[in-house]
Amino acid sequence: MTSLSTSLTELLGTRLPIIQAPMAGGITTPALVAAAGNAGALGSFGFAYTQPEAMARDIEAVRALTKAPINANFFVNAPPTPIDAGSQRDAIDAVAGYYAALGLPAPQPVKAPYAPDLDVQLNMIEDLKPEVLTFHLGDLPAVRLQRLRALGIKTGGSATCVEEARHLEALGVDFIIAQGGEAGGHRGSYLRNPYEAMTGTLALTRLIVRAVKIPVVAAGGIMDGAGIAAALALGAHGAQLGTAFIPCTESGAPAVHKQHLLAAREDTTTITEKFSGKPARGLANRYMREMNGANAPQLAFPAQNALTGPLRAASAKAGNPDFVSMWAGQAAPLAREMSAAQLVITLEHETLEAIERLSSLNR
Amino acid sequence: MTSLSTSLTELLGTRLPIIQAPMAGGITTPALVAAAGNAGALGSFGFAYTQPEAMARDIEAVRALTKAPINANFFVNAPPTPIDAGSQRDAIDAVAGYYAALGLPAPQPVKAPYAPDLDVQLNMIEDLKPEVLTFHLGDLPAVRLQRLRALGIKTGGSATCVEEARHLEALGVDFIIAQGGEAGGHRGSYLRNPYEAMTGTLALTRLIVRAVKIPVVAAGGIMDGAGIAAALALGAHGAQLGTAFIPCTESGAPAVHKQHLLAAREDTTTITEKFSGKPARGLANRYMREMNGANAPQLAFPAQNALTGPLRAASAKAGNPDFVSMWAGQAAPLAREMSAAQLVITLEHETLEAIERLSSLNR
Repeated sequence: MTSLSTSLTELLGTRLPIIQAPMAGGITTPALVAAAGNAGALGSFGFAYTQPEAMARDIEAVRALTKAPINANFFVNAPPTPIDAGSQRDAIDAVAGYYAALGLPAPQPVKAPYAPDLDVQLNMIEDLKPEVLTFHLGDLPAVRLQRLRALGIKTGGSATCVEEARHLEALGVDFIIAQGGEAGGHRGSYLRNPYEAMTGTLALTRLIVRAVKIPVVAAGGIMDGAGIAAALALGAHGAQLGTAFIPCTESGAPAVHKQHLLAAREDTTTITEKFSGKPARGLANRYMREMNGANAPQLAFPAQNALTGPLRAASAKAGNPDFVSMWAGQAAPLAREMSAAQLVITLEHETLEAIERLSSLNR
Repeated sequence: MTSLSTSLTELLGTRLPIIQAPMAGGITTPALVAAAGNAGALGSFGFAYTQPEAMARDIEAVRALTKAPINANFFVNAPPTPIDAGSQRDAIDAVAGYYAALGLPAPQPVKAPYAPDLDVQLNMIEDLKPEVLTFHLGDLPAVRLQRLRALGIKTGGSATCVEEARHLEALGVDFIIAQGGEAGGHRGSYLRNPYEAMTGTLALTRLIVRAVKIPVVAAGGIMDGAGIAAALALGAHGAQLGTAFIPCTESGAPAVHKQHLLAAREDTTTITEKFSGKPARGLANRYMREMNGANAPQLAFPAQNALTGPLRAASAKAGNPDFVSMWAGQAAPLAREMSAAQLVITLEHETLEAIERLSSLNR
């Protein structure tokens, strides 16, 4: 009987020190979260753009499939500021040609609210009581954190630098997710400029492990058990994997996203703000190259996300990679096609193998 | 009796799978290389800017101090192209204010040769016969590689992406250095745009280990035994550490470089081309911020390096960090002040400890 227990598995009540990363936009379906949980990892919902009623449905669906703990993840957004007509026009003009190319009606000015209200989401979460809650792109008010913890919910926050990790620890979270530069999706930076806080996972994990006393979860570029073993060697207490779960049968990622991920042979990811208004890493495509190249006008997050929604959806539906946000980390070429349960068990075996291989060096 | 033997230690004839990274510009003194070698690592000279006669003196000095193998490292430069007067003037104008600020005479147009001729360097190396030769920023002609190998010299090349690693393997090198995005100093990219080949060490190491059959050495952000154990967990056969050796007693880095490295508390490194003409990572300072910010005119590598030489030297001599190239990797805050021998032994113990800690997770 082998195990991989760490202070993180004790904290979260999981068998394995592995978190299936929250990914917003429909990727983290109840089937994915339940399968990851049943196999021993922590399944996570990316609820950034999910309304409270849908959150309730999602969590209830998982509860029907597993007793495993569930993680609900949220984006911390600055309150939306009014957008003037000129900015709307510029941002619309920048994407109108792509709408036309897909045969879509011309894009219209976006209207607030551009995304669900975080307070309303968190009020609902206090009723739903998932075992774990993580947040990204900022912090939560200390009062809210205390309330969540009083409900028995374990809380974790993302850090892209030592300063953010120390801030979260002082705020009272239970664990830190060290989001290295390799990570796919949105850069979680909020105390530093995200472009200046792009430290690689290996370096960042070690820096944060040395800086805080609470458990640290390494994230970014980890796709297999060798990567998980490396994270543990760095002193992390667990690893969070997102990209590895995207091609899973149960993942809600568009087929074109899965296909392009599985076809990657080199790190061809890049960072763009042009899909959502905040920098995020994904497989480079025509939209990212052209919009980044022209430094085209954009709205602030999450208004830009609302603006590009129809474009992304239509592109995905058409199986056209050009205008889909195909979020992926830098180790994308290591993506594998399997079920989530199979992936979690494979990760477990590979991690144990990597540890045994390492032990055999010390003879 | 413990050991950390891998296919790299067998190949190189070292006790430990640790390479003290080559660092040009006077950092890798004979005392540093000899101390690293005597302690069981592979000591390396950064000979990018070193004339053949000085190379001979350096290698002979180490031979007098140790029987350990020596690594000589070279930059592969494109042949210098003539620089027109306008470009010289623009590049001079961009730095003239800094020269004046340090009380230096106005900078003068630089003249070819801007750096030693690689062919002449390599001809000398065939006489000096170091046990190991590594190269950076390109490849070597197959004929030259064959000649070096026929002399019994083990050869390694830097790769920043899968394509470069595969190319080097096909060319016939003995090992690959996977230079992750965290790494300090010059980005080794030559088949891809260096800004697009900035994959973090954790992801890149795993990608390259999976792509080639020869031994892989992980480089970038590794500062202690936990980092070395992580590299080995990823399937690398060794780790190359540069920044960790900069503060060593025996290192020839300017005092201001050592001090600022030891004072780092956060990853404040950035990439600049403005010191040498090619992108390299170091601790951000006034020169980097202002020159990058203005995207100031620069000469091609290595002419820009020749142009900024007097500025860097005078700034270092004055103990002024503003105009020194303080190359450093993203894990700079983990730098420690000790002798090279002490560092190598500490790294060995820490690596074994990290492996034992990892083994204990699997109970």
